[in-house]
Amino acid sequence: MRNEGLLYIVSAPSGTGKTTLLRGVMDYFPDVSFSISYTTRPPRPGEREGEDYHFISPQQFQQMVEKGVFAEWAEVLGNRYGTTLDSIRESRSQGVDLILDIDSQGARQIKEHFNGGVFIFILPPSLEALKQRLKARGVDEREMIQFRVAKARDEMKQARWYNYIIVNDRVEEAAEQLKSIIIAERCRRERVLKRIGLSKL
Amino acid sequence: MRNEGLLYIVSAPSGTGKTTLLRGVMDYFPDVSFSISYTTRPPRPGEREGEDYHFISPQQFQQMVEKGVFAEWAEVLGNRYGTTLDSIRESRSQGVDLILDIDSQGARQIKEHFNGGVFIFILPPSLEALKQRLKARGVDEREMIQFRVAKARDEMKQARWYNYIIVNDRVEEAAEQLKSIIIAERCRRERVLKRIGLSKL
Repeated sequence: MRNEGLLYIVSAPSGTGKTTLLRGVMDYFPDVSFSISYTTRPPRPGEREGEDYHFISPQQFQQMVEKGVFAEWAEVLGNRYGTTLDSIRESRSQGVDLILDIDSQGARQIKEHFNGGVFIFILPPSLEALKQRLKARGVDEREMIQFRVAKARDEMKQARWYNYIIVNDRVEEAAEQLKSIIIAERCRRERVLKRIGLSKL
Repeated sequence: MRNEGLLYIVSAPSGTGKTTLLRGVMDYFPDVSFSISYTTRPPRPGEREGEDYHFISPQQFQQMVEKGVFAEWAEVLGNRYGTTLDSIRESRSQGVDLILDIDSQGARQIKEHFNGGVFIFILPPSLEALKQRLKARGVDEREMIQFRVAKARDEMKQARWYNYIIVNDRVEEAAEQLKSIIIAERCRRERVLKRIGLSKL
């Protein structure tokens, strides 16, 4: 009997260092898949179609919404992001663990539609630290940074319903925590008993 | 506000490699305490009073049972082992995470008396592997080994009610899993929200 793949949902306000942490996870767990979202946002320099996102037009996105192909979708700063039901179902049925890198609006939809998801929220050490990181990243103008910080303040309230919270103060420690959560969840009794076969006990 | 220390309970049939795994944890987490049990079993070569166990007489043990000082105690192969209530309460109130290395009889008592314990069961990869390890350890006679294997078969059934199960097939992997469970439990939402102060969100 094949175990159903685990579903890890990782959310974080913009500028929390989530991308760096997830890259670390990707390197450490070659057997974990990352869901690639669809988005109407234009690619940033260096981002590649089919690797970072599937970049599609607002019209295409709207059609997909109407067809009901999304497990979750959300609008952030005027751009839409979504994960298809098929991509999740496929990984799970193949027994592959899947990570969804989505915001709390999307995470909430996943929580309603799928059982057994592991919800992980990454917090910045403080809002001030977040502001500094956004400045250092150099992608956004001053007003956009203020907007993102205000949005982060709201978004952080959502951490309350996640299973785990990682405070990304020191990145090595946060990476270790994210890795540990993934490993520990695989050691949960129900999963191990299924894997080794109940009859063994 | 100080967070209450976490309580990790680790059980395993004899010969599963638990001691090696726990030594690894001890080295990795200098901030985690190990509870030192009282026992009526005579010290094995190399074991030291107050480090491995508190070695006491059956009469002393019986007096402690009657005084109600034990949080848990159990009899295994004619020897008694117990953990005092005081040792657990002291660590918890000081915010120190504590590991109890006890068998499933004792673990059951802890589950009944304390909230929020994290129960971890270590399984041998197979009963045959367990037998080989016991032989290699060279402590027990043939009959004692047969007895321990039969006991392990019973004891393994108890894994069903633990929170986590680690199969100690490759020791490095099992050590990583034990470490990960400890770290992940510290990242649980309720604990992090308490640590950073609810008001922050």
